[in-house]
Amino acid sequence: MGGRALVQWEQNREGAPASLTVDVYAGGRVPEAGLDEVAFYQVPYTPSSQGVDERLDVISRMPSLEVVQLLSAGYEHVLPLVPDHVTLCNGRGLHDASTAEHTLALILAAQRDLPRWAVAQRDHRWESVPLRSLADSRVMIVGYGSIGRAVEQRLLPFETEVVRVAGRARPDEGVHGAGELHALLPDVDVVVLVTPLTEATRGLFGAAEFALLRDDALVVNVGRGPVLDTRALLAENGRVRAALDVTDPEPLPVEHPLWDAPGVFVTPHVAGGSAAFYPRARTFMDAQLSRWAAGEPLANVVRAGHGGR
Amino acid sequence: MGGRALVQWEQNREGAPASLTVDVYAGGRVPEAGLDEVAFYQVPYTPSSQGVDERLDVISRMPSLEVVQLLSAGYEHVLPLVPDHVTLCNGRGLHDASTAEHTLALILAAQRDLPRWAVAQRDHRWESVPLRSLADSRVMIVGYGSIGRAVEQRLLPFETEVVRVAGRARPDEGVHGAGELHALLPDVDVVVLVTPLTEATRGLFGAAEFALLRDDALVVNVGRGPVLDTRALLAENGRVRAALDVTDPEPLPVEHPLWDAPGVFVTPHVAGGSAAFYPRARTFMDAQLSRWAAGEPLANVVRAGHGGR
Repeated sequence: MGGRALVQWEQNREGAPASLTVDVYAGGRVPEAGLDEVAFYQVPYTPSSQGVDERLDVISRMPSLEVVQLLSAGYEHVLPLVPDHVTLCNGRGLHDASTAEHTLALILAAQRDLPRWAVAQRDHRWESVPLRSLADSRVMIVGYGSIGRAVEQRLLPFETEVVRVAGRARPDEGVHGAGELHALLPDVDVVVLVTPLTEATRGLFGAAEFALLRDDALVVNVGRGPVLDTRALLAENGRVRAALDVTDPEPLPVEHPLWDAPGVFVTPHVAGGSAAFYPRARTFMDAQLSRWAAGEPLANVVRAGHGGR
Repeated sequence: MGGRALVQWEQNREGAPASLTVDVYAGGRVPEAGLDEVAFYQVPYTPSSQGVDERLDVISRMPSLEVVQLLSAGYEHVLPLVPDHVTLCNGRGLHDASTAEHTLALILAAQRDLPRWAVAQRDHRWESVPLRSLADSRVMIVGYGSIGRAVEQRLLPFETEVVRVAGRARPDEGVHGAGELHALLPDVDVVVLVTPLTEATRGLFGAAEFALLRDDALVVNVGRGPVLDTRALLAENGRVRAALDVTDPEPLPVEHPLWDAPGVFVTPHVAGGSAAFYPRARTFMDAQLSRWAAGEPLANVVRAGHGGR
């Protein structure tokens, strides 16, 4: 297929199909001119998780559109804006390395008291205390999928044991179902939440789940804020610890009690948006545009377009 | 062999040799009574790196002594206190998992701006900025030995490349010699210093080495403070970054400029002294006492005793 593609980055020279007109918008700003010719639209990726905005509104002014390509994994907010005949693709997998890396950063920060040292450094205090370790820990990954696998690969060399949990059990992969969560929680040292937000995962980790954890256990949330019940965490008052890249509410208001909750470390939703994302996104986009130009099936289709224009 | 052993922890039941009298000192305090019968003395391990003190002075009051067992890797400070006929063993390997874990914690903290988030949390600020990543980095390990291998095992799943450097090249293991250091430095993103302090490694990383590094490169020191030239690091003034668990001087005085140096993160010599150490030390001590009771060669001998009493 041919047509005009509107994308964020230039293609690698070797990857560019000759039949394609690829226009690059600079600085994440989509130009108004020529929107009626755009057949492939890669929505500008920005590290922050903004809602519906002009990057998406522009879809309604693209009558030739065939494909909307997101570089985020989440796509639910975009679905209503994409006409039925347009195929929607997401960025599944592109954030795995970055998110898994941040997950390990959060776990190690909590076990190694890094927030304490950062604050002590600002105060010029050299005060050594014995530390916890990650070694010998049993780590549960809740929402075991591609990010969970990437987390597990990074965890195992630390001499840890991993317990896999997903919505449905997959015995052939050693994945427990959500129904086993309560039976497994008393024996784990660290819980990593990497689930997307669905009606099944909203509030998944609340008072009942916290109550089953050992004293000093660590809960890490790199999925979505509302998967963890903030009030239940606050009620623990330091009995268990938490390291959160996502919160509920988000962003955290300046007066929110979570900022000062004992044993809680917060990073501002930065797990997936690191430098690791860009080379992986560019490689993916090169391959996706080549597939599109060659008329091959696209990758990461979350809803195929149907019917003609 | 029989005799009295004075150690820090009770032995595991299954590991205790019947021929041995094992006395455990509580709370790291060596009792004065019965010192003349002690044949095997495990010097109390404390997480801090203290100098010569009462834990070592007591050796001169042990006329039946055959073995001094340290649980630290360093032993030079103890050598002059151990009579020639006494065998000295150290704790080589017992800190590898802990030190390697802290090394990854420091690298990830630096790449993921964790000190910034810790300080922002104290100030209740939610400010997202794009982050660096560890993925796709080339990491040089200077002093590639057992700790270096443990660091490498933990690094590789992060999609990194490791460059191995030691004092002498070991081509069969892919280890470069110190003579190649300058040629390799311009192409690395992260340098990890894990060397012990010797005359060859004192000031190993100074102005000339910093000058060869890329802008924004990261130097991590988990070896010994004086291996890195503090003044040369300060002169970089943030052009390169550093994450240091050991410093020169150490402890860092309250007015030292390193505390506020841009791009420098400091933890107070806590890498090896985490919870990971204890189960490994206990397992080692059980095996070592069994070897001693059975008259088998001891592990981790750094100087064999010679001549009789």
